Amino acid sequence: MPLKALALNSTLKSSASSEASSTGKLLQLIATEFKKQGVETEIIRLADHDIKPGVTSDEGEGDAWPDIRKKVLAADIVLIGTPIWLGQPSSICKRALERMDAFLEETDDQGRMVSYGKVAALAVVGNEDGAHHVSAEVYQALNDVGFTIPANAVAYWVGEAMGSTNYVDLPETPEVVQTMVEMLARNTAHLAGLLKSAQYPAEEQ
Amino acid sequence: MPLKALALNSTLKSSASSEASSTGKLLQLIATEFKKQGVETEIIRLADHDIKPGVTSDEGEGDAWPDIRKKVLAADIVLIGTPIWLGQPSSICKRALERMDAFLEETDDQGRMVSYGKVAALAVVGNEDGAHHVSAEVYQALNDVGFTIPANAVAYWVGEAMGSTNYVDLPETPEVVQTMVEMLARNTAHLAGLLKSAQYPAEEQ
Amino acid sequence: MPLKALALNSTLKSSASSEASSTGKLLQLIATEFKKQGVETEIIRLADHDIKPGVTSDEGEGDAWPDIRKKVLAADIVLIGTPIWLGQPSSICKRALERMDAFLEETDDQGRMVSYGKVAALAVVGNEDGAHHVSAEVYQALNDVGFTIPANAVAYWVGEAMGSTNYVDLPETPEVVQTMVEMLARNTAHLAGLLKSAQYPAEEQ
Amino acid sequence: MPLKALALNSTLKSSASSEASSTGKLLQLIATEFKKQGVETEIIRLADHDIKPGVTSDEGEGDAWPDIRKKVLAADIVLIGTPIWLGQPSSICKRALERMDAFLEETDDQGRMVSYGKVAALAVVGNEDGAHHVSAEVYQALNDVGFTIPANAVAYWVGEAMGSTNYVDLPETPEVVQTMVEMLARNTAHLAGLLKSAQYPAEEQ
Repeated sequence: MPLKALALNSTLKSSASSEASSTGKLLQLIATEFKKQGVETEIIRLADHDIKPGVTSDEGEGDAWPDIRKKVLAADIVLIGTPIWLGQPSSICKRALERMDAFLEETDDQGRMVSYGKVAALAVVGNEDGAHHVSAEVYQALNDVGFTIPANAVAYWVGEAMGSTNYVDLPETPEVVQTMVEMLARNTAHLAGLLKSAQYPAEEQ
Repeated sequence: MPLKALALNSTLKSSASSEASSTGKLLQLIATEFKKQGVETEIIRLADHDIKPGVTSDEGEGDAWPDIRKKVLAADIVLIGTPIWLGQPSSICKRALERMDAFLEETDDQGRMVSYGKVAALAVVGNEDGAHHVSAEVYQALNDVGFTIPANAVAYWVGEAMGSTNYVDLPETPEVVQTMVEMLARNTAHLAGLLKSAQYPAEEQ
Repeated sequence: MPLKALALNSTLKSSASSEASSTGKLLQLIATEFKKQGVETEIIRLADHDIKPGVTSDEGEGDAWPDIRKKVLAADIVLIGTPIWLGQPSSICKRALERMDAFLEETDDQGRMVSYGKVAALAVVGNEDGAHHVSAEVYQALNDVGFTIPANAVAYWVGEAMGSTNYVDLPETPEVVQTMVEMLARNTAHLAGLLKSAQYPAEEQ
Repeated sequence: MPLKALALNSTLKSSASSEASSTGKLLQLIATEFKKQGVETEIIRLADHDIKPGVTSDEGEGDAWPDIRKKVLAADIVLIGTPIWLGQPSSICKRALERMDAFLEETDDQGRMVSYGKVAALAVVGNEDGAHHVSAEVYQALNDVGFTIPANAVAYWVGEAMGSTNYVDLPETPEVVQTMVEMLARNTAHLAGLLKSAQYPAEEQ
């Protein structure tokens, strides 16, 4: 059975926008490499969905999170894609992470969070500066709620200080980005495979 | 003329919620101290308003930000109030900061951002852990978009590791919190007064 | 063959100090749980060693890092222990992380960093506030240099806001800390075992 | 009386190193602009001094901090210069910040920290990525210990993602860096002047 990845594109722009998403472009590149590793990827553009603020798994009428959450739980790999604004993850990325706070209370019959055994990876783009910090924020949040982080779990691109070029407008994929993406796909798929066949042990009774 | 403070309560809960806001309670305490310093405070609960994602000052139909932005620009002091989730500022706090990214391009006729001369302070509450980091994130974002940060600009409360008590449920205000709040109000009002009477110089022509 | 863990105690106090190390106490607790999981732990108190500033693996005469580095490379698990100062990891913790920056250039004959397959975990203590952020900083730094992070990889204790109690002076281990430590030990040992028997794949040639 | 700035160069390399310091070059550029604003700057290269680990103002025999601390207290402006390693401030920068933790307990006869009224600014350089986060860490640490942060308090340069160019090797100062440096110097000098003539008020007795 192939591994399944769910990619959450946290760009601030909805699909209705006329602007192409740099984050979406990097996620596509990763999805292509995942495919070579036997991983099927579904990409969700979060700005197209009305994810309510809150820290429960269902914030009531009109909340788009419960459906997205089902896909998170069905995936072996969760790939967060986010642009950098003010050197930090987007508010839409933060919204999705907040909703996963609920996993802290959602455990299986042996006391493990519903996210246990799932592997997380990250795609980050910005005009300039911020990728390392964005990965720090997202690693910590996802690790707190039960995800495992493979070696070199982030692929990113940013321009020179105060640059204004968008990743989506680069004439071609920089070689260093291609190398990172391949490494991310290899490592993530490998670790997700290991954990799928050998879940974390439960608390001894 | 008295100084004006605008407080942005970034709790995830709207006023329609039956739960009291811990962030709101701490903001009220600061507003009381501000009053003693001659500062009038207006508190806006951001979750009651539909602030669209984006990094411009007007994201079109239905966007609540333009009205809030006007109040930001009319204030001498901007007080950010945020709960801690996963050790980080709330997604609603991040949303407001992102919208101020637009200030980077909005300068007066002498090249200064529209936020120049305004002073920022911070109120942070959580069940446990995260206030220092939340202040780091907010200081950096607000400083990037032109705000000035007075000495000891944050008042906070968090419980012991893995605690679950809400600030709003404490039987009384801890003395250390009261002391911090008074210090914050004194320092913020003092610096806002200085800058109001002596704005940052423009670039020499 | 049992798994080996190397714990790096990053307290600012050397063993010559008369004060007990809170970080050391938490590391001991983890070492005890590791033993139950079949993991042997060696604890090094970094403040007892003269680790020179730099980002190479050997900074010359008198540098204590080369010997510590050998132990890092011989371990299956690296456990970072750090106190919180100003809401952040200690300068001694930062020094050790900086020295591991050299791993970025130190790869095996198949292009994998020397740290690949090793699992990292974390122990954090402070009088108050900062554990989540410390874990964010350390996760990101260690992940960048090739380590893998198991689910719930941090055990921590901090007091209430502006508290002054040291972890080492608590009358007994809080139950929440004991639970976290057991979870950390289980998860870390499990993942280290998996990766020891199935290293990340090399780049396809 | 002219304002005095103390710049703390937190490069990992001592003056004995044959390599030029990128951090030092950016600090020099700021010192030149400070001079135009009537500010005299002294630059200390911290790696040349044996600053002991700890959180008191004097860590005993051989500790270089007490002399540096005197200069901090005699300055109106403290300018932190740091390289970026692993997306974070250097361990030498962290060491200096930790030593200022002592200010929390060192207050004048009216209860104000010895650092009150002093203004802090920041110079950050790296091959790539990390300046915003470094400023977040340093702003928060310095603000906690009593410093005031002027608008746009950081000047930085970083290269494109995974770049390897050093700032010191750029053929000329990028125009965006020159503009930032002038802005930093203007704002910092202005605010330091205001606070020098109108210190924060003491707690009402």
